[in-house]
Amino acid sequence: MKLGRLNHIGVATPSIKASIAHYRDTLGATDIEEPFDLPEQGVKVCFVNTPTDSGMNGTQIELIEPLGEQSAITGFLAKNPLGGQHHVCFEVPDIETARAEFEQQGKRILGPTRIGAHGTPIFFVHPKDMQGMLTEIMETPKGEGH
Amino acid sequence: MKLGRLNHIGVATPSIKASIAHYRDTLGATDIEEPFDLPEQGVKVCFVNTPTDSGMNGTQIELIEPLGEQSAITGFLAKNPLGGQHHVCFEVPDIETARAEFEQQGKRILGPTRIGAHGTPIFFVHPKDMQGMLTEIMETPKGEGH
Repeated sequence: MKLGRLNHIGVATPSIKASIAHYRDTLGATDIEEPFDLPEQGVKVCFVNTPTDSGMNGTQIELIEPLGEQSAITGFLAKNPLGGQHHVCFEVPDIETARAEFEQQGKRILGPTRIGAHGTPIFFVHPKDMQGMLTEIMETPKGEGH
Repeated sequence: MKLGRLNHIGVATPSIKASIAHYRDTLGATDIEEPFDLPEQGVKVCFVNTPTDSGMNGTQIELIEPLGEQSAITGFLAKNPLGGQHHVCFEVPDIETARAEFEQQGKRILGPTRIGAHGTPIFFVHPKDMQGMLTEIMETPKGEGH
């Protein structure tokens, strides 16, 4: 694959509400999206947008809060009660091609390809095969990416 | 402050050489800078550049490897032998203004303002005051930022 945009970094938090206040009041974020539920992953999600040199299309902060008992981040928050950096997400033009390449390299992919927080297909690769970083691979939304 | 660019995410690694191979061969990075020593922080540093919609000015991956016995990341790697996400770094137009604002909010700043990997002044804020994330605040290099 060719490295695409660092779409977002996933940041676990016990409270999206408190995190929104933090990003707005302490860090001065001016563009925070509406939170929404992503029940497939067992998380509530909120994107904080950051600038680049040419607009607000920078790497997003994806705030994720547990949703329900089966949340994927319950264990992470048990170890890190304040929250913290949970994963990174890179874009690719075609998810199936990327998945085949990771499989060919023997990287452990976590579960099936599914629809992620941006409405496009995603999969996760095991942190032990990615230098300690849980890594999400995401297909670039149509009409974006150049 | 007003949230600036997410300049980089700091990623600790036991071996920059192995990480370069990972980013090049597994993730397909095409723009990896030359590693250099930053003895003030006790780290060797290597930037992996990522694209945005308009160029290669995306959030960088800052690979950091311990340099010497007094490295700031020795403890982190003892807990995370494979490496992993170590800190995030946001840009500000003026470092002294930003420092005063964090101090006014009672955030614990770690040590003096000093020169960081991009040659501009930086300081770090304690992860316990930043929702579990060690946070670097960096003055935007002159001639960049709009």
